[in-house]
Amino acid sequence: MAAALGEFDRIAKFFKPLAAGFPGSLGLTDDAALISPGDGHEFAVTTDALVADVHFRSQDPPDLIARKALRVNLSDLAAMGAEPVCYTLATILPPSTDEAWLEVFVRGLALDQAEFRIKLAGGDSVKTPGPATLSVTAIGRVETGRALRRSGARPGDRVYVSGTMGDGALGLAALKGRVADDGNATLAGRYLLPQPRLALGRALIGKASAALDVSDGLVADLGHIAETSGVRIVIEIERVPMSPAAKAAVATDSRLIETILTGGDDYELAFTAPMELPERLADVAVTCIGRVEAGGGVTVLDRQGRPVTLSAGGYRHF
Amino acid sequence: MAAALGEFDRIAKFFKPLAAGFPGSLGLTDDAALISPGDGHEFAVTTDALVADVHFRSQDPPDLIARKALRVNLSDLAAMGAEPVCYTLATILPPSTDEAWLEVFVRGLALDQAEFRIKLAGGDSVKTPGPATLSVTAIGRVETGRALRRSGARPGDRVYVSGTMGDGALGLAALKGRVADDGNATLAGRYLLPQPRLALGRALIGKASAALDVSDGLVADLGHIAETSGVRIVIEIERVPMSPAAKAAVATDSRLIETILTGGDDYELAFTAPMELPERLADVAVTCIGRVEAGGGVTVLDRQGRPVTLSAGGYRHF
Repeated sequence: MAAALGEFDRIAKFFKPLAAGFPGSLGLTDDAALISPGDGHEFAVTTDALVADVHFRSQDPPDLIARKALRVNLSDLAAMGAEPVCYTLATILPPSTDEAWLEVFVRGLALDQAEFRIKLAGGDSVKTPGPATLSVTAIGRVETGRALRRSGARPGDRVYVSGTMGDGALGLAALKGRVADDGNATLAGRYLLPQPRLALGRALIGKASAALDVSDGLVADLGHIAETSGVRIVIEIERVPMSPAAKAAVATDSRLIETILTGGDDYELAFTAPMELPERLADVAVTCIGRVEAGGGVTVLDRQGRPVTLSAGGYRHF
Repeated sequence: MAAALGEFDRIAKFFKPLAAGFPGSLGLTDDAALISPGDGHEFAVTTDALVADVHFRSQDPPDLIARKALRVNLSDLAAMGAEPVCYTLATILPPSTDEAWLEVFVRGLALDQAEFRIKLAGGDSVKTPGPATLSVTAIGRVETGRALRRSGARPGDRVYVSGTMGDGALGLAALKGRVADDGNATLAGRYLLPQPRLALGRALIGKASAALDVSDGLVADLGHIAETSGVRIVIEIERVPMSPAAKAAVATDSRLIETILTGGDDYELAFTAPMELPERLADVAVTCIGRVEAGGGVTVLDRQGRPVTLSAGGYRHF
């Protein structure tokens, strides 16, 4: 292995190319980036940190780790209806991290930067005696006053989710050998590389009364909408959309339905709307799973319309 | 010890009060904060991460750790001439972190929020099996196109620094028992609690041709200006301002002059200007230490005007 590069050389070699073409990054040579949302727009700003063997597995391919770190933040922008602009990245890595790892890591970022039209604006690169840790702050722009919020759900609204539920948590279980995946490792793929629903978020502006991304688990996240909006949310288990792989897992072990409802890491959008929405929006399946009522909390109804008690309110890391 | 609070409860109890009074934080209940720089302004955005026993000592008082994490980022805003608006904070803490620690940590943030007129906009709170790690993204506002940059130094400009040099690095050495501090532990205090030069940064807009904050060490940081501006920077050792405590340390061990020139963690501003500046600006001492010439790199001249060779180009963590 070649002699280790210093911090500045690493930034120049690996990270500067990620900032190319974004004037506000100032080529990563200044103390801060300079950005403006443009007339009639404001910025949405979100920060998510990921720790090796807590939020991803340290043995995961570095490009997938990079892309997941970016995507969980993009998912927050999607939930606000914002379009990505730029991000800052703090890489907090063990001294043993070699350049080969960094090269693949950066390749993953470049891939997703192109896919989601976002650029690196700045950041920090430090060493840790602990596990690899990544902290991303993503910045998006949205028309002033039009961002999707969690607080607008009203009694009478319908409750929707995009895509399918539970694949992320089942994917982690599959990677641990606790759940059988399908032949294409669909579940594992959903855990390793979530799909931020940016186009859907944009399409929901003016339609959704409340929205968020499903990261803590469907029931816990709907609980956030219920609390912030001051409403009760009622969902029906049988309407919760599942992938064929998730259905197969549940058919084998019916207790996994709880993982579907409370598992995290889906990064789909959950939202409420006063009107009936089409079954697809912005190329994503959209499923009505319940309704908003007066009151508080989240009620889950089984096939017979009876409230179900869940042993966990949602997924917790650790 | 009481039962540990979950992530949401911790955020509500400890961090929500830090976001009070900042509408853009949305009470920390949404997926992202919403912010706008206002007409004629843009945002300066900077991210710095700190790791226990790398960038601070894990046994340091939690309020000082919190304030240092915020201040090193504020120092970057100062270097751009920006005024603080808000910040996001990722706390990446060991599971053993108790509420007493968090309480003091948050108290430190509240103190500095009031002093520097900045509010918490959002963030993340996760656990790590490794050392306590903090990642702060600070956001400031500056008149569009007027931010201080590193690239504007021109031959003929004078080179200035604020305050005194070397106290931060000597302070760390003092805390390790390698250097004698004064009776007030001035050096240690400068390491533990740097003073971001925000008012000075604002005052330098329209005056300084290039600026940055001294975090990597005076010579290394002037090297950044030299490289980004495409100029040579010449400074004279005897003009470099030192605190009485630093002078006393150097009087005892003359080799410490190298620490003054290359030690990090000063968080003073270094800048160039085409004109002569007063000895104080925005209540801070400002000292001319050299000049800008055509060429490249940084040349340090001794008392006799002879170039000095330094064994280290600047301070490196690890």
